[in-house]
Formats: sequence, C-alpha cells, structure tokens
Amino acid sequence: MYRAPIDDIRHALFDIAGMREFLERDLAPQLTEDLVDAILSEAGRFAAEEIAPVARIGDEVGAKVEDGVVTTPPGWRQVYAKWCEGGWNSVSAPEEYGGQGLPAMISMAVLEMWNSASMGFAIGPTLTIGAIDALEKHASEELKARYIEKMVSGEWMGTMNLTEPQAGSDLAALRARAEPRGDGTYRIFGQKIFITYGEQDFTDNIIHLVLARLPDAPPGTKGISLFLVPKFLVNEDGTLGARNDVFCASIEKKMGIHGSPTCTMIYGDGRFGDEPGAIGWLVGEPNRGLNCMFTMMNAARLAVGIQGVGVAEAARQKALEYAKDRKQGRVPGTHAGEMAPIVKHQDVRRMLLSMTVLTQASRAIAYACAHASDMARFDRERGAFWLERVNLLTPIAKAFPTDMGVDVASLGVQVHGGMGFIEETGAAVLLRDARIAPIYEGTNGIQAIDLVIRKLPLSGGEHVRGFLNELKQDAEAARASNQDDLGIAGARVLEALADTTEATEYLLGQLGAGKLDHALSAATPFLRLMALAAGGALLLRGAVASGDPARAKLAFYFADNHLSEVGALKRVVIEGSDSLIAAGDLLEAV
Amino acid sequence: MYRAPIDDIRHALFDIAGMREFLERDLAPQLTEDLVDAILSEAGRFAAEEIAPVARIGDEVGAKVEDGVVTTPPGWRQVYAKWCEGGWNSVSAPEEYGGQGLPAMISMAVLEMWNSASMGFAIGPTLTIGAIDALEKHASEELKARYIEKMVSGEWMGTMNLTEPQAGSDLAALRARAEPRGDGTYRIFGQKIFITYGEQDFTDNIIHLVLARLPDAPPGTKGISLFLVPKFLVNEDGTLGARNDVFCASIEKKMGIHGSPTCTMIYGDGRFGDEPGAIGWLVGEPNRGLNCMFTMMNAARLAVGIQGVGVAEAARQKALEYAKDRKQGRVPGTHAGEMAPIVKHQDVRRMLLSMTVLTQASRAIAYACAHASDMARFDRERGAFWLERVNLLTPIAKAFPTDMGVDVASLGVQVHGGMGFIEETGAAVLLRDARIAPIYEGTNGIQAIDLVIRKLPLSGGEHVRGFLNELKQDAEAARASNQDDLGIAGARVLEALADTTEATEYLLGQLGAGKLDHALSAATPFLRLMALAAGGALLLRGAVASGDPARAKLAFYFADNHLSEVGALKRVVIEGSDSLIAAGDLLEAV
Repeated sequence: MYRAPIDDIRHALFDIAGMREFLERDLAPQLTEDLVDAILSEAGRFAAEEIAPVARIGDEVGAKVEDGVVTTPPGWRQVYAKWCEGGWNSVSAPEEYGGQGLPAMISMAVLEMWNSASMGFAIGPTLTIGAIDALEKHASEELKARYIEKMVSGEWMGTMNLTEPQAGSDLAALRARAEPRGDGTYRIFGQKIFITYGEQDFTDNIIHLVLARLPDAPPGTKGISLFLVPKFLVNEDGTLGARNDVFCASIEKKMGIHGSPTCTMIYGDGRFGDEPGAIGWLVGEPNRGLNCMFTMMNAARLAVGIQGVGVAEAARQKALEYAKDRKQGRVPGTHAGEMAPIVKHQDVRRMLLSMTVLTQASRAIAYACAHASDMARFDRERGAFWLERVNLLTPIAKAFPTDMGVDVASLGVQVHGGMGFIEETGAAVLLRDARIAPIYEGTNGIQAIDLVIRKLPLSGGEHVRGFLNELKQDAEAARASNQDDLGIAGARVLEALADTTEATEYLLGQLGAGKLDHALSAATPFLRLMALAAGGALLLRGAVASGDPARAKLAFYFADNHLSEVGALKRVVIEGSDSLIAAGDLLEAV
Repeated sequence: MYRAPIDDIRHALFDIAGMREFLERDLAPQLTEDLVDAILSEAGRFAAEEIAPVARIGDEVGAKVEDGVVTTPPGWRQVYAKWCEGGWNSVSAPEEYGGQGLPAMISMAVLEMWNSASMGFAIGPTLTIGAIDALEKHASEELKARYIEKMVSGEWMGTMNLTEPQAGSDLAALRARAEPRGDGTYRIFGQKIFITYGEQDFTDNIIHLVLARLPDAPPGTKGISLFLVPKFLVNEDGTLGARNDVFCASIEKKMGIHGSPTCTMIYGDGRFGDEPGAIGWLVGEPNRGLNCMFTMMNAARLAVGIQGVGVAEAARQKALEYAKDRKQGRVPGTHAGEMAPIVKHQDVRRMLLSMTVLTQASRAIAYACAHASDMARFDRERGAFWLERVNLLTPIAKAFPTDMGVDVASLGVQVHGGMGFIEETGAAVLLRDARIAPIYEGTNGIQAIDLVIRKLPLSGGEHVRGFLNELKQDAEAARASNQDDLGIAGARVLEALADTTEATEYLLGQLGAGKLDHALSAATPFLRLMALAAGGALLLRGAVASGDPARAKLAFYFADNHLSEVGALKRVVIEGSDSLIAAGDLLEAV
C-alpha cells in the first residue's frame, strides 16, 4: 500500500532543491514551512486514502466510450469531486481566479503523490492546469473571465489538442483548420488524436484548447493558431448553452493508464449545431499558437517528468514491502530450517537500492527544475538567469525521470519474481502505466535533441558551464567532509562531472563546427550522462545538507554503482557517432 | 508482419556458432547444409504464415478456464495440430521414439522463430520437450515405452510442476508429498502454481512431471523426488483410462503471454477417482528428483534465452518497418513541404541499430550455447570440455537475451511514439510478453549467481579463461584485418575482454578468499559485462568469417556504442560492493 514518502519529498525540497532559501528570502510571502508541511501531509493522506484505492479498478475496468459518451472507471468521478473540494485542483492556479498561487515546488511535490497513487487519474487534472496556464498568459480578458475560474475550481476540465494522425512530433504537419465567422469567432474543423480526457464524465463542460490553421496561414509551424473550443457554449451569465460541434469518436485501448480516456476528437463534422464547425475563440495572436503552447510546454514536460518520479516511488515501495515479506533461500544467520526474507539477499538489495537511488535522483532533478521555475517567477532580479535554468533543466527533468520510471517499475516486477508478472500483485501495472511517460509531451528523443541543440548553447554555453560548476561545488563540499562515504562519493561525482564537461564541450564544438549529425546522434546518451552526473551531485548536496548518514550511504551507493556509466556514456557521445552514421544507411537497405 | 530472418539465423549458425565445422566433421551424419536450409526455410514459413496470424487473438482473448476446463484462444488448437503434423514437435526428440534427433542448433533456431511469432504459443511445446528429455534420461523402460512416443508426436503434451506458493527460487521448501501405494505407484498430494500449459485443450492427455517428497525423505533439496502423473491413466494398450486426481483450479491473469494457460494445479484433493491422491510413477531414484531436473535445466534455460532472442527479433522488425513508413520532421535532403521517414533521423537510427545489434549479440550467445550442447552430445572425445562450456554459457544465454528481449521490445515501443502505447499497433504486447522471460526458469539474478558461484570456478577457473582466450582470438583476427571498421572494433573488443578478464579474476579471488557477499553482490553486473564482451567478440567473429561489410559495420556500431559499458561494469563489479553492503541494511530499517 502506497504511503506518501513525506520525509524524502521534504528532504528533496529543503535540502536539495532550494526550498529553504526560498522561504528564508520570503519570495512567496504567504508561504511558511508549517504551511508546506501541512500541504504535504494532507496531500499524502489524500493520495494514499482516496486516490490509491481506486487505482486498480481504474486499470481493470478502464474508461469506456459509447456513442461519444465516456464513462470513467467506477468511483473515479467521486474521487475527482473530493479532490476538487479539497482544493487540490487550484494549488498552482493564479489567485485572481480563485487559485492558491503556490510555487511549482509545492504543486510538483503533490503531483508526485497523485501520480504514485494513480497515473491514469493524475494526468487529467494535469492537462487542465496546462490549459489554465495557456489561457491566463494569452487569452483575452473576456475569455479569461468566462472560463478560468471554473477551470480553477475544477467545475470544468481543460484539454490540449495538438496531435493529428500525420502530425505527432512534427506539428508543422497540422491540418486542422479554423474559418472566421466574421463575428470574432471561428469554426473549427479537423481530427485530433491522443487527446487525454478529451471526453469524460467528471465535469459538465470541457474546455478544449485546439491548434488549427487560419485560411491564409503560412505553411509549417508559423501558420498555427490556438483556439478555445468549449464542449458546451457558455452563455454570458456563465450557464451552459448549446452543445458545440465536437465529439469523441473513439478511445484508445492502451498498454496502461487504462482509466485515462485517450480520445479521438472530431471537430466540425456537423453532428451538433445548425451548421458544421465547432465554434472557437482565438487565444493569443493569429499564427502564434505554438508560442502560446511553448509558454506552458516547460511546465507540462516537468509534470510528465514528475509522473516518472511518482510511478518509480510507487514501484519502489511495493517491491520493498514484498522483499521484506517474501521468504526464499538462506543467508548467513538464517536459522536452520527457515528461509530468509529476500531483502537479505545481496542481489535483491542491489535491485532495491538502485530503485531507491534512481527514484531519489529523479526526484532531485525534477524538484530542482521546479525550483528554477519558481525562481524565474518570484526572483525578479535574476529572472533571466532562472529562465535559462528552467530551459536547460526541463528536457532532463522530463526524460530522465520518465526513463527511470520504466526502469524502476521493471526492476519492481523482477523483485516480485513470478508474482510480478501476475496482474493481481499490482507490480506489472506500474510498468504498463510508466511506459507512456517517455513518449508523450515530446518523446525522450525529442527532449535529448532539445537539450543538445537548443539548451547547451544558451548564453553561448555559459549557462550550462555555470550549472556544472554549481554541481562541482556540491561534490567538492562532500569530498571535503570528514565522512568516508561522502569523501569517496565526492571524488566519484567530480570524476563524473569532469566527464560531463568534456562531453558538453565536445557537443558545443560539434554544433559550432556545423556537425549537426554528430550532435543529433549523441543526444540521447548525452542527456542520460548529464542526468546521472547531476543526480549524483544533487544526492550529495542533500546528504551534506541533512547530515544524515543514511543519505550519505545512498549517495555513496549511487556514485559507486551508477556513476561509472557516465564515463562509458562520454565515450559513446564522443566516439560513437561515426559508427552510427556509418551503419545507419543499412537500416534503409534491408 | 514477421518474416523469419533466415539470413541472420544462418549467419549466426554457420559464421558464429560453429555449424560449418560441425557439418564438415560429420558429427551428426544425417545432417547436411541443404537439410539445414530446408528446415530453416520451412520453419520460417510456418512461423510467419501459421503461428504469427493467431498471436494477436491469443493476446486479446487469452486462455480461459471454467470448472477446471481450459480453453485456449480461437485457432490455437488447429495451429498446434498443424504444427505437430509438420513434425515440428519432434525436431529434437530421440529417434528411437519417432523423433528426428536433430542438433540443438537446429531446434533452437526454429524455436526462435516460433517465439518471434508468438511467445505464448511457443512456450507450451517447449515444456513438453523438457519433459521428454527428463523421461528419456531417467524414467524406467516401461514408462518410456508407454509415454514418450506420444509426447514426441505431440499427441500428448508434457508439463513441469516445480513451483509451490512457498517454493519458487528455493525448491528446498517444497511440500508436495508422495505416498507409496505398495504396488510401485504413488499417490501425490499438493498444490503447484505457475504451471505452464498445466491444463489445455490441445491434447487428450497431459503428462505432468511433478516434484514431491516421499514420506521419509530428508528435508531440503535432497529429499525431493520426481513423479510422472498423467491427467488420464494410460492402459497397457496405450488407450486412455480413468481420470487421475489432478485438476486445474485457476489460471493466472498475467501481464503478457495471455494465450499460455498458467495454471494452479491441485493434486489429490479427491475430486477424481475412488480415493484421494493422484496416481504417479517415480522417475529416476528416490530423493534424486532435482538431479533429474538438472539434466534438463540447461536445455530449458537456453530455450527461455531463445524466447528473448525471438521476441527481440519480432520487435526489431516491427519497429524498423514502422520507421521506414512513418514520416515526421525533416533531414537534409528532404524536399520542401515534405517529411522524412523517421528512419532517417539519427536518434531513431540509434534505437534501431541498438535493437539490431543487441538482438544479434543475443542470438550469437544463445546459438553458441546450443553449439556447445551439441558438441557435448556428438563430440565424444571432448565431451567433458563441452559440458563445461554448456554449463558456463547457459546462465549467460538465459539471462542476457531475456534482458535484451525486454530492452529491445521497450525500444520498439519508443520508436513507435504514441502508437507504441496503443495495443492495436502490436508493439506493446511484445514488451508485455517479453517481461516474463527474465523471471521464469530461474530469475536472471539466480542465473548471475550461478555464473559467478558455480561456473567461474569450473576447472579451477581455467575453463572461463580458455573461453575468454578464444574470444580474444576473434578480436585479434578482426584487428589484424585490413578493414577500418573491423580494426577499430577489434581494438575495442580486446579492451572489453581485458576488462572482463580483470573482473573475472577479481571474482575468482573473492571466492577463493571466502568473500561470498562481494561475489554475490557483483553477480548481476558481472553477467551483463561478460555477455556484452562475448557478444562483441562473436559479432566480430561473424563479420570476419562472412567478409560482409554490412556485418562489419554493425559489429563496429556494437563495439563503439555498447562496449564502453563493459569498463563501467568492471568498476561496479570491483568497487561497487562495499557501498552496496554498507547501504543494504537501510532497506530493512525503513
């Protein structure tokens, strides 16, 4: 049974991500340490006692669709209602619309808990938060006034409609179109796929944000506009009007997150209303729709990274619980005729320790990214610096934790042995759920390319250099400590950071020399390299700050057992591209 | 759609695993190169045209049970009947019982194809082959005469009943019991779980091999005996008699291989027959049941390793096909307004190339293990040497390909992007199916421990040293070639083999010094290290032997992009255990 890891979350916030200094500087004046603790504790209770109990039925029954009407799994509506009542939908939302305006460090910490309890449940509200964000930053005052408050309270949910069958990673290929009606509104036509919670029975209305092209729009990504398309039109007094011409044609049968309805949405086929075309309102400038998306994309990517942290934490807890209970084999000290709990076996310990440190390193990176986004928002003087930091960390914070979510959940299955493959145990579903996170919100390959091509060159490479220097200070502080474990671990992390610097400079050099293929082919191993090195440094930072010998031991384990991969990855980054480029054409020849 | 990779399989057999010399020496006199080709080609056709088409319905419908009666998925019975008619059940079976007595290299090559087509289908007959093997080596002439022929023809299937709820990896905890009836037969009582094809509708009778304890048996593994327990008793004339007191109480709902009924079998609860107790016959000596199992365990473990190869191959083909078809984004040379197939993107190429070489390295290792078992059987003069080689290679050939099956299938999901998570695409099911193989037939952790504790010390360590020296010769030959790719790859493989030697000697030293914990905690990274180094050397052997520049490029890619991990793993093996042992106790404290 999931228990919110309040100690670990608090440690990651205060000892690693910068919450302590954030509070001390009073950057978000309403926020106190007591309030943080109260929120974490109450969120932990809600995740464990309300959401987690409906996770299994969500997987087993799944979301259903009939004639465009989606039914979520039994009990999910009720949990959503309670969740809104508890104010959880409004944690990060702007205060002027009834939100609590809390920092991302808080909203991401509680989001981790929702995802540990049920990824399929948590992803719905996550999309609404993204939609609120986009509207608040780009919509007209009229639209804001009409829509945001009810989305903040949770009375209405929001969706993001980007993908079309021919346009996934490549949004330039979008075909959905918007025709002006002459009254400032538009008629939207097109098919959108993979729309999370595109239709549901949680709320009376659904506010779709839809990317589409205006009639005279230029081709490619510079001709895409963003529209607000409500399921039901909203009257001036806020009551619901006519059904808009949008419906859910089908939902996908997926490997995991079965409770989350993944919808194919049809806009403008004439099913509803007098004439075909879903009525929509432009959000932001014409042809600038992708810019509106970009402002929320960092947040959405971090939120998906947090899903990885959440599912890894759930898998870690479940495996550890099983390993303490399940008895097989003997170790020195086992009484005659008895068996030892498998947690006593070194090979099982390796799996459990790796699950633990990979989860913690993922959390540290994700929370550090949340901290940077809070600093960009609250620390006006260094806003530009922190925005670069968010931009640098976001692809890492999306990709690494989601990869680790899969790896940790898979290790969790393995710890359970044969029982891990049986659905009843609840280990397999975590792996099935986790598998989506490296794919959506920009595949992890896209993240790696973003990191290398767009983020390393920030401030001419100086930003990433500064980041690596900060991490070096953490490692130096550990090395200079008087603790054995930390001293060795500090040396290992410094070695990993030196490798990271070498790989970074190599890639900056390739980019500078116009060798784009070499940079692109090294992107995925580079992201992993940087995440491992950063994770090692951040775990050390936490161990030093907390003075907790247990955390020092875990940082030492991470440094010893996961950081030697950094040296290997450095070689792959620097030496591996030639053979990749040479062999690549073979794939097409077959 | 799966197409049997005849060229790759043939290459692995002839250029890597030793089939060429095996034929030249006429070790299996009836076997010719033409016959090998004919078998591979016909098996490839059967796998692609008969088995593969029923794979999806097997996953979607799954096996069902009602009142102890199991129904396999629609069409599966018919495919099994055709498969037996085609003689595929008897490929490896002894000739005196109607089998074809073909070498393991052949039976494993065709088994790979059955598994590429459908793991859930292929696993059933695999168990029968194991049961035949155990009976042929250990049963009385009377039992052999009565049972084996019909198991060879496929008229009856066999099962292996080892696991009980409290006894999985640790068979010492077995509780099933056997009571002598005084007439040379026994009554068997107990519950067995995870019994693959324990009940089914393919065959009229099912021959269960069951581990149980005699009344006065010593505790632990030295008190376990093996019994033959048919579902229906068999009359002297071979016709079926009374129903025996064994039935299927339930089948498991699993993450994958849904078509394979995984049964809980109840022996002796009195449901059938005059008095409780399933009637069984002792196979082999009393209390020597585990020895009977051990003789077939190597074969069964290799067969599971082959499952990993098969599912990886299927995933590789599917992802490559998708990547050539799916268009997103642009690369240099893409026409204006068009998109490039994603196979053109370097990051996608990295995934596809890794899928390819990891599949090929897994196949090379598994086939080399099959070759060793053939040599142990046919090369009487060096039988002892080859038996050691089988023993050394088996844990590697079980664990590495099954780990790669999961990794490659997961990469396959990733290549498909969002479509990979949709079940209809057929990529996700390969990952769900693949996930069992690292668990059953001895978890991969058990394999790693077996490798380190029991296999490295063979002949005082000389056997593994000899093996590594053979691999070095392959790498030297590559380095000495005049080809650029092979020369660089040869140097990399030599470096990896030097690391492997260092790690091996370190572990032998730890074992010699009685530092068991250090050896145990390093087992899993060591197995991976050795498999990667061996895989690199074997791919080079194949590239040199075939003279095929495409194979040289792939070996180069493997050496450049996967072998640097060997150095990292060496550090984990040698340096990682201290921190693991230090941190391990934390797990119990939580």
